[in-house]
Amino acid sequence: MELGIIGLGKMGFNMAERLRLAGHKVVGFDFNKEATAKLTATGSIGVDSLEDLVKNLAAPRAVWLMVPSGDPVDQTIAKLEPLMQKGDTFIDGGNSNYKDTQRRHAEAAAKGFEFVDCGTSGGIWGLREGYSMMVGGDKAPVERLTPIFEALAPAKDEGWGHVGPSGAGHFVKMVHNGIEYGLMEAYAEGFSIMKAKETLNLDLVQISEIWQKGSVVRSWLLDLTADALKKNPSLDGMEAYVPDSGEGRWTVFEAIDLDVSAPVITESLIRRLRSREANNFTDRMISIMRNEFGGHAIKKS
Amino acid sequence: MELGIIGLGKMGFNMAERLRLAGHKVVGFDFNKEATAKLTATGSIGVDSLEDLVKNLAAPRAVWLMVPSGDPVDQTIAKLEPLMQKGDTFIDGGNSNYKDTQRRHAEAAAKGFEFVDCGTSGGIWGLREGYSMMVGGDKAPVERLTPIFEALAPAKDEGWGHVGPSGAGHFVKMVHNGIEYGLMEAYAEGFSIMKAKETLNLDLVQISEIWQKGSVVRSWLLDLTADALKKNPSLDGMEAYVPDSGEGRWTVFEAIDLDVSAPVITESLIRRLRSREANNFTDRMISIMRNEFGGHAIKKS
Amino acid sequence: MELGIIGLGKMGFNMAERLRLAGHKVVGFDFNKEATAKLTATGSIGVDSLEDLVKNLAAPRAVWLMVPSGDPVDQTIAKLEPLMQKGDTFIDGGNSNYKDTQRRHAEAAAKGFEFVDCGTSGGIWGLREGYSMMVGGDKAPVERLTPIFEALAPAKDEGWGHVGPSGAGHFVKMVHNGIEYGLMEAYAEGFSIMKAKETLNLDLVQISEIWQKGSVVRSWLLDLTADALKKNPSLDGMEAYVPDSGEGRWTVFEAIDLDVSAPVITESLIRRLRSREANNFTDRMISIMRNEFGGHAIKKS
Amino acid sequence: MELGIIGLGKMGFNMAERLRLAGHKVVGFDFNKEATAKLTATGSIGVDSLEDLVKNLAAPRAVWLMVPSGDPVDQTIAKLEPLMQKGDTFIDGGNSNYKDTQRRHAEAAAKGFEFVDCGTSGGIWGLREGYSMMVGGDKAPVERLTPIFEALAPAKDEGWGHVGPSGAGHFVKMVHNGIEYGLMEAYAEGFSIMKAKETLNLDLVQISEIWQKGSVVRSWLLDLTADALKKNPSLDGMEAYVPDSGEGRWTVFEAIDLDVSAPVITESLIRRLRSREANNFTDRMISIMRNEFGGHAIKKS
Repeated sequence: MELGIIGLGKMGFNMAERLRLAGHKVVGFDFNKEATAKLTATGSIGVDSLEDLVKNLAAPRAVWLMVPSGDPVDQTIAKLEPLMQKGDTFIDGGNSNYKDTQRRHAEAAAKGFEFVDCGTSGGIWGLREGYSMMVGGDKAPVERLTPIFEALAPAKDEGWGHVGPSGAGHFVKMVHNGIEYGLMEAYAEGFSIMKAKETLNLDLVQISEIWQKGSVVRSWLLDLTADALKKNPSLDGMEAYVPDSGEGRWTVFEAIDLDVSAPVITESLIRRLRSREANNFTDRMISIMRNEFGGHAIKKS
Repeated sequence: MELGIIGLGKMGFNMAERLRLAGHKVVGFDFNKEATAKLTATGSIGVDSLEDLVKNLAAPRAVWLMVPSGDPVDQTIAKLEPLMQKGDTFIDGGNSNYKDTQRRHAEAAAKGFEFVDCGTSGGIWGLREGYSMMVGGDKAPVERLTPIFEALAPAKDEGWGHVGPSGAGHFVKMVHNGIEYGLMEAYAEGFSIMKAKETLNLDLVQISEIWQKGSVVRSWLLDLTADALKKNPSLDGMEAYVPDSGEGRWTVFEAIDLDVSAPVITESLIRRLRSREANNFTDRMISIMRNEFGGHAIKKS
Repeated sequence: MELGIIGLGKMGFNMAERLRLAGHKVVGFDFNKEATAKLTATGSIGVDSLEDLVKNLAAPRAVWLMVPSGDPVDQTIAKLEPLMQKGDTFIDGGNSNYKDTQRRHAEAAAKGFEFVDCGTSGGIWGLREGYSMMVGGDKAPVERLTPIFEALAPAKDEGWGHVGPSGAGHFVKMVHNGIEYGLMEAYAEGFSIMKAKETLNLDLVQISEIWQKGSVVRSWLLDLTADALKKNPSLDGMEAYVPDSGEGRWTVFEAIDLDVSAPVITESLIRRLRSREANNFTDRMISIMRNEFGGHAIKKS
Repeated sequence: MELGIIGLGKMGFNMAERLRLAGHKVVGFDFNKEATAKLTATGSIGVDSLEDLVKNLAAPRAVWLMVPSGDPVDQTIAKLEPLMQKGDTFIDGGNSNYKDTQRRHAEAAAKGFEFVDCGTSGGIWGLREGYSMMVGGDKAPVERLTPIFEALAPAKDEGWGHVGPSGAGHFVKMVHNGIEYGLMEAYAEGFSIMKAKETLNLDLVQISEIWQKGSVVRSWLLDLTADALKKNPSLDGMEAYVPDSGEGRWTVFEAIDLDVSAPVITESLIRRLRSREANNFTDRMISIMRNEFGGHAIKKS
């Protein structure tokens, strides 16, 4: 079938490729003309305007947004709506907040558009291994788009599913990423403890490889970790600085709103916040208190 | 080659079987005569005394202990030493504290025995899939035992390794289990949040299956989780009560001793402690404080 | 001066009393007629309708809301606005979210009303000891209300202040309560550890009294704790169940929004959430995982 | 009565002074001759050898150790024992681990000495305000030393007590310091959140002063915090680096050993560990994982 894709970054471009290889017609737009040219070179149709994108698709159209969450999604939809017609479908494949998704679904429905949300996991490996997709929205558009999901997924019936009404896809993906934060932090702490045990002189690369086979902690993240450690076992040249892209904090907010205690996902987020607090005020406050009551020395900067 | 195994529980019995299937001679002892009879029935040699175990092995002997950590290990060694001779090797395949292991290694060495520690992961699946083994100790006995490790491992050269001097095997296994605590808690929190989001009516079995293919959080633990949820999606009939077997708390102690901040592994442990604190004093203390300063109602038991 | 007070619960009634004792005229309303009658009996004016409240005050009026946060505040304002006139002032003395306060301030300003927010601490002890007040809003109404704040405060110039623009009062009070969560949890954990150390048979009442004098941890909360322990040293007859009234979770949300890592305030909240999760799903998930990989027994309910 | 004091640092010197002012005879030793000379100048007896210290005291002697915990305590006792005689009493007033204390008590008892442990709080303010003391040990020596405790305490019968058998004093002091960690972190986090809310431009000095009067969070630590902020409101010139002196981590170990979940005291400790992990391995591990699966950029150092 035909699919428009808006946003040809790391994720969007590879998804276009995977669809083309599965025999689908892909029309792709990006502000970056290099990306659209590169797409055209693959055999898909790269276009430099949303008008051209819409023109190249037959109604009922399906347009997949792979743009940063927040304002870019709203802005893209606002530009597309006048170009599209009733019955066309938007798919938001990015990491939008599910509450925004539910609002956009309602707004789209009021104008006669379909709106499907698809939480998409797989990162830069998706082209080769397929994408895990959690799909939310109404039944009809999800059924119509099934060939697309089947082509993007690791296998026809595996790694994707229609998980619920509008917002459900992004909700499940949000939690997926919250779990991901916890998994990453658990591995990272464990390797740090082993690194710090200098008297045993442990080889982290060797250990990560042992664990890949037969251990309880084996996982895809561990496979990646083993690969990365092989390239740079001491992690030289890097800063201890970790961004977060939103889903982790949304998961924490949601847990609290639902009265669910989730200390590990929460601490994974807090740890990332801490990694970006150069010379933080909290620790300096504690230093002055210790100095005030106990005369303990303060480390000067 | 020949191996004595002491302790034919879930782990020890299956290891004996995996070794027998690989062509090794296994002599197994357990206080439980049913277990030894069952071992004999498989074609290995089940014996009912340590004397018989030692007699059935040619020097230099290798005796693998698969008994609960702590006193049982010391007691078993104390009983075996008079029966064995210089140059024989003890392998502690259980979850001993690495500090005990280092002490036992020194004590054994003073008497002319070899002492190897082997952190063994794989649980009840090891018979079929092989065991992940982290081996610590001196080079000579580890080399001599290599055929044993190769047979127990998922593949000859995979899933096991000599990771360092005495204690290193148990140290790495300890950290492995600490990581395992964190991974389990991260998944469990995520599924709890989804369960609590009643308005979306999410199907946890479906989601666990989606994530198994192509997602960033795919892992062996997730595979097991999907299997378990399939059998009992609402987890009915179970208590929210989680034991811990020691390695998690040792990992926390070690992190602190090494000045490594490990909030996620630590919170995973604290969560388990909390699961066993029926009507805990801490929360009741907070209730009385709230009542004292704000007149807030106290929930009576 | 004159002040209307809406809401004569634990806090509002005592504040009315403290103002009356300082020579101010108080007109108080509550849906509970017993409360208004009781107020009249003290010498203040208890009224049974908002109309009567407004009528009993001379313009420019000041009406202090001491009602539950959220909808009740909006509803009360909506009923009052038609009765009041330009230049009158609302004071929200409850625990409203500062974002709601900023919205209400803007809405009130558009209609010609003043809107002051006052975070009020002191609980049931305020009548005797005075209230700590963090005031936000525009300069003019705060200056006009200064005699009220001076009368409610522990002393004329102590324990209160104009901390910033609209919302600042409630923001600071929110953080105050977040800190309060952390303090309470720290004490409660410490006493729990001492309680659990059965071999030392410690007397928690004695210890709380020792610490009240000269120790680094002396505080008003500790004074209250000592009083409460004296009445019920073993905290018999209580459930380990702790509600939260909103400010704690708002503090956590705010910390994350501001990229400030605040693990202790956050864990204090998570602990309260956990206290209300009977037979929680998270711990049961961990139990099934342990059973799946290790064959560990599950505690049945 | 007479008391020998060993260790005339910030704590020991002031305690000697408080005792002298109360009419007791104090003989003080320190390796630092300036300190002993200064003591002599106050009217007490400063000595430059342990021999002289013992000679200046009449039997049964009482010698108070105010030296760093760990080896210095054992070494000082080992040097004193040959000089002292049966029935003499050691008082360990420092922050020793209660398990060491129990061992020392047993060793002292075997040689005919008394051994009392005294957890001492109050810091550099103790000379003026008195010390809070938690005393452990046998009844007889504690009774004999009562005049000393009464003189050091804030008031004769306040701020000190015999809390239990040997080790109980240091155990309670350990928990006291664990609580102290939690309190400090709670305040520090709260002030950090307010500092970060730049749009409200809050005055932290003003707020700390407001809270000192009538608020639920008023405490001695808050008083000190207010003083410190007044001197340096932006905490310029300081590093976000916080040492820990042992009692915090012992409290965490003890909580875990007792199966008590204590997330807030634990996170307070973890936070301090984190403050000293420059360019920590954990965060860099997370960065490489993010790069491996998602192609996310790594911040270079």
